[in-house]
Amino acid sequence: MSSDPRADLPPDLRDAYEILSSGAAQILPADGLVERLLAARAENRPLRVKLGIDPSGTDLTLGHAVVLRKLRQFQDLGHTAVLVVGGFTGQVGDPSGRTATRVAQTADDVIANAQGYFDQLMRILDEKRTEVVNNADWLGSMSLAGILDYTRQVTVAQLLERDDFSRRFQAKQPISLSEFIYPLLQGIDSVEIRADIELGGTDQTFNNLVGRELQRSRGQAPQAVLTVPLLVGTDGVEKMGKSLGNYVAIAEPAAEQFGKLMSIPDGVVGMYARLCTALHPREVDELQSAVASGGADANRAKRAVARAIVSLYHGSDAAAAAEGRFDAVFKRGEVPTEVPELGLPDTDPVHLPALLVAGGLAGSSSAARRDIDAGAVKLDGVTVPAHSYDLPRSQLISRVLTSGKRKAARLV
Amino acid sequence: MSSDPRADLPPDLRDAYEILSSGAAQILPADGLVERLLAARAENRPLRVKLGIDPSGTDLTLGHAVVLRKLRQFQDLGHTAVLVVGGFTGQVGDPSGRTATRVAQTADDVIANAQGYFDQLMRILDEKRTEVVNNADWLGSMSLAGILDYTRQVTVAQLLERDDFSRRFQAKQPISLSEFIYPLLQGIDSVEIRADIELGGTDQTFNNLVGRELQRSRGQAPQAVLTVPLLVGTDGVEKMGKSLGNYVAIAEPAAEQFGKLMSIPDGVVGMYARLCTALHPREVDELQSAVASGGADANRAKRAVARAIVSLYHGSDAAAAAEGRFDAVFKRGEVPTEVPELGLPDTDPVHLPALLVAGGLAGSSSAARRDIDAGAVKLDGVTVPAHSYDLPRSQLISRVLTSGKRKAARLV
Repeated sequence: MSSDPRADLPPDLRDAYEILSSGAAQILPADGLVERLLAARAENRPLRVKLGIDPSGTDLTLGHAVVLRKLRQFQDLGHTAVLVVGGFTGQVGDPSGRTATRVAQTADDVIANAQGYFDQLMRILDEKRTEVVNNADWLGSMSLAGILDYTRQVTVAQLLERDDFSRRFQAKQPISLSEFIYPLLQGIDSVEIRADIELGGTDQTFNNLVGRELQRSRGQAPQAVLTVPLLVGTDGVEKMGKSLGNYVAIAEPAAEQFGKLMSIPDGVVGMYARLCTALHPREVDELQSAVASGGADANRAKRAVARAIVSLYHGSDAAAAAEGRFDAVFKRGEVPTEVPELGLPDTDPVHLPALLVAGGLAGSSSAARRDIDAGAVKLDGVTVPAHSYDLPRSQLISRVLTSGKRKAARLV
Repeated sequence: MSSDPRADLPPDLRDAYEILSSGAAQILPADGLVERLLAARAENRPLRVKLGIDPSGTDLTLGHAVVLRKLRQFQDLGHTAVLVVGGFTGQVGDPSGRTATRVAQTADDVIANAQGYFDQLMRILDEKRTEVVNNADWLGSMSLAGILDYTRQVTVAQLLERDDFSRRFQAKQPISLSEFIYPLLQGIDSVEIRADIELGGTDQTFNNLVGRELQRSRGQAPQAVLTVPLLVGTDGVEKMGKSLGNYVAIAEPAAEQFGKLMSIPDGVVGMYARLCTALHPREVDELQSAVASGGADANRAKRAVARAIVSLYHGSDAAAAAEGRFDAVFKRGEVPTEVPELGLPDTDPVHLPALLVAGGLAGSSSAARRDIDAGAVKLDGVTVPAHSYDLPRSQLISRVLTSGKRKAARLV
């Protein structure tokens, strides 16, 4: 396991391995991906790469896109993405119970009912190489005898090793027996779709390894598990998330995306290059070196990463236009670079109209609200949406707040 | 709970409670039986008293009969026995797995296939007040969603409190997740048959309490749990069991039963009176006092208990005849009461032909075998069956071994 897993690969599969393993948090077992790549080659078939999805989500961010980009890399190498909608697991998770009769949506129904979500997915994935399945199709008709058969494959001690279970058990917090069964349901999905690889966040490692056990018990080659790390938000500190306001949504306009991406700290530019772009690992390495040398090189690298990401979602023309607009605002002095500092109050969220008044950027709260609603108030050149009066501190700190073209303050 | 649960009962139910609670190891909750008796009275219906049975067993002993006698007491008071055959649980317990398709026997099939077993049961129970059901009828058609619904009602920590689970978990011995589900299956049986009371051995207490939780979750009044103690064997030491040879089978001839019962130590006569006869608790108390006074009183009490038990299975005439035969052999000197002692070898089992030779009761091993096969060799006046050459030490120790009418030895 400690030797280089690529040693077994023919030269022409090494580049594929390079791309697929780049940015992965973990590959389990260490030689699992190599083994599956060789198996697919030997059997002359594409790999079946599984990802569980939740179509109840709405706006996808670059954080959600990390694992989808990894899936797209598999597709670009000829493999098949199998998206598993948790039609069964989602419904039985409902604490109101008595849900057996409600499991009726087919995968097609799910797509129709969450068209907006799937439209966003298909901005990242290759639709021709994507299957969408609904686990209600097999779990909905599974019998008690069927699930008991699977429960024989795992022990209570194994389940209690899962981080969150072990923590809760130690803390004497209740774990319902039903929660012990959920990891198995995900594993049964792997058996049903004959997954070669399962992708997921690092929090899914345990569940994905259960899938290996169940596949083995049914005489299938166990899937390799590839996890991707969590993407840090544009603040460079916290996990990217909607509630922290440190996110870039994939459906946002190109200019908003570009502006936000230019605001990320140098320290995370390499991570964004690796996890959010379609750049080859070698190009990512080069950009990372450029960032490390600092100054103009670092700025050029950050700019290249922002352009690469915006291009993925809006095309290269739109990315170039966004870059041009960004330069017009920031480089050509349309926002003063030397501005007075303005201390943020201790509250979180911060009431923006009061802040504008305190900094002398508005004459009164009501004038400040009118300015915001008119789109005249910006943070680092990005317009604050109408009616956004209360913003999280993390979205304000270190930003340049402007109102119109002349009034500005750096928030500290 | 610490006050007398009978305080709530109308006088006419107190005697019923006296009989039903007599000899019980535990009643849970303490006021559960009182509460169910009152509910049945208020609803003008019989109680439904559940007992799980395993028709794969063959010869019933007085040990098996303890819980069945308790069930018969309920029947004699007008209540209904519901015998649950584990048609589902028995089959999925089979480690060969893949058993869903084999769940096909109805309760009627089960009775037909195990007629000998049910014939024995009906020597104890009142057939008119007995329902036999097969849990394959509901568990066989239960869905994954159905069982998940039930698994929400119990926690992992609760299950790990069960003695054997807790011991194995501490000792780091594997507990399969399927084992965690079995207690629920038994509880689902209680829901399905709407049990008011569940009877069982003390080792079943935990599982039976799970049934209460599941019934409550379905809006049913939770069953009371009544457990009976294990019956000590005729040696007065070990649990009664086939392998220890310290048992009395209910289908044995009256004389064998009587002889074996007259051999039990005084200390367990009261227990046999309480757990194995149909005597009223007050009569049991009287017999127990008589045993305590020792001597002829104790002997009379033991004789009364033996007669009461034999009468249950063979009728009072056969019991009287067995007693007469016993007296002919033992009391009228047909076995010498003063006999030389013969030390048992250290082996277990003991080879009887060698013992007969060592004690001078036979001239050679082959002669000893012929004597045994001819029915000439007896222990405390009970014939050793033909071809029984190796007997457990516990069946020999302190007994009088005779061969024919003249040769005898007391085994020590």
